[in-house]
Amino acid sequence: MTEPLASWKPILSRALHRNRSLPNSRYFQLATINIEGKPTNRTVVFRGFFNQSNQLQIITDSRSEKIAHINYHSAAEICWYFPKTREQFRITGQLTIIDETNQNQTPRLTVWKNLSDAAKQQFTWPYPGEMLTDNKQDFLQDIPSNHQPLSNFILLLFNPEKVDHLELRGNPHQRTLYYLDNLDNWITKAINP
Amino acid sequence: MTEPLASWKPILSRALHRNRSLPNSRYFQLATINIEGKPTNRTVVFRGFFNQSNQLQIITDSRSEKIAHINYHSAAEICWYFPKTREQFRITGQLTIIDETNQNQTPRLTVWKNLSDAAKQQFTWPYPGEMLTDNKQDFLQDIPSNHQPLSNFILLLFNPEKVDHLELRGNPHQRTLYYLDNLDNWITKAINP
Repeated sequence: MTEPLASWKPILSRALHRNRSLPNSRYFQLATINIEGKPTNRTVVFRGFFNQSNQLQIITDSRSEKIAHINYHSAAEICWYFPKTREQFRITGQLTIIDETNQNQTPRLTVWKNLSDAAKQQFTWPYPGEMLTDNKQDFLQDIPSNHQPLSNFILLLFNPEKVDHLELRGNPHQRTLYYLDNLDNWITKAINP
Repeated sequence: MTEPLASWKPILSRALHRNRSLPNSRYFQLATINIEGKPTNRTVVFRGFFNQSNQLQIITDSRSEKIAHINYHSAAEICWYFPKTREQFRITGQLTIIDETNQNQTPRLTVWKNLSDAAKQQFTWPYPGEMLTDNKQDFLQDIPSNHQPLSNFILLLFNPEKVDHLELRGNPHQRTLYYLDNLDNWITKAINP
């Protein structure tokens, strides 16, 4: 199955390229809903697209609260602001959890392999969100570079359904909506900012 | 009524001060829920605290989608990342809409008066989110500096209930939770990152 060409993808790639001097231009904010139905929001790191698809890769820990949220409700919205070019992408979509039980482990293994040792080590840390562990040694377990993914290492795939692109440079601002029609083709529409 | 001292407030003020060279350090991402119960997320500008209170001020247009969301569900979460000091504040709370019908117009008038002419002009623009208006003149209406707030100008007050502060500098990361107890006192707790 070939995916339809996503007209927003080259626009997002251009923003990533133009902002590449800023490390935080690869961070975005991911909003989900908790089990009480309330909004939650946190910064995560963009880990590239899955293969050549439109799906954005994010990593997380199975012990983090957002996994409970996503199990309850897979809808999410990314807000991605690029400071240098002063543009924002709001990406609406669905999250899929890829954990150690998935039959196809290739994407999970590939992302794990590309992590720094420091990033891998975080998956050995004590339970996140609990009272601070006194023993500093608990944060210093080494993970050999060739170690298999730890069982709490999760790959999230974010599948976009709508992209709202706002450019703040210039007056008035420019705003473009990208959405899927009934035949799963991406439609582009200029809208009022 | 005096508000209890919020232990997180000097920490947030310090982050604002240390990141003051970056204009986007005054932007944060605000997550709300739409009428379908799905998460939504957008960048907004921090307009200071209301008086000496803990309430964060945000401005918006009564025609923007988020007003419908907030009318439906006032819960929200702010995610505020400071690039220079590499720290994040996740602020959970409730939003209150201050529009032209509120009896006390002072906070709304004060924030309006401090806006730039360009920011004021945005409230004259055609309906946001609708198909792009062809007539460029519709985006160029002047607002005299001393003009009263336009009727679609809204002040949002965000009242924090919980603050989750994460510092990425250093290994391991530092994480501190601030929350209100039953007597509305702010409690501080060091937790695992």
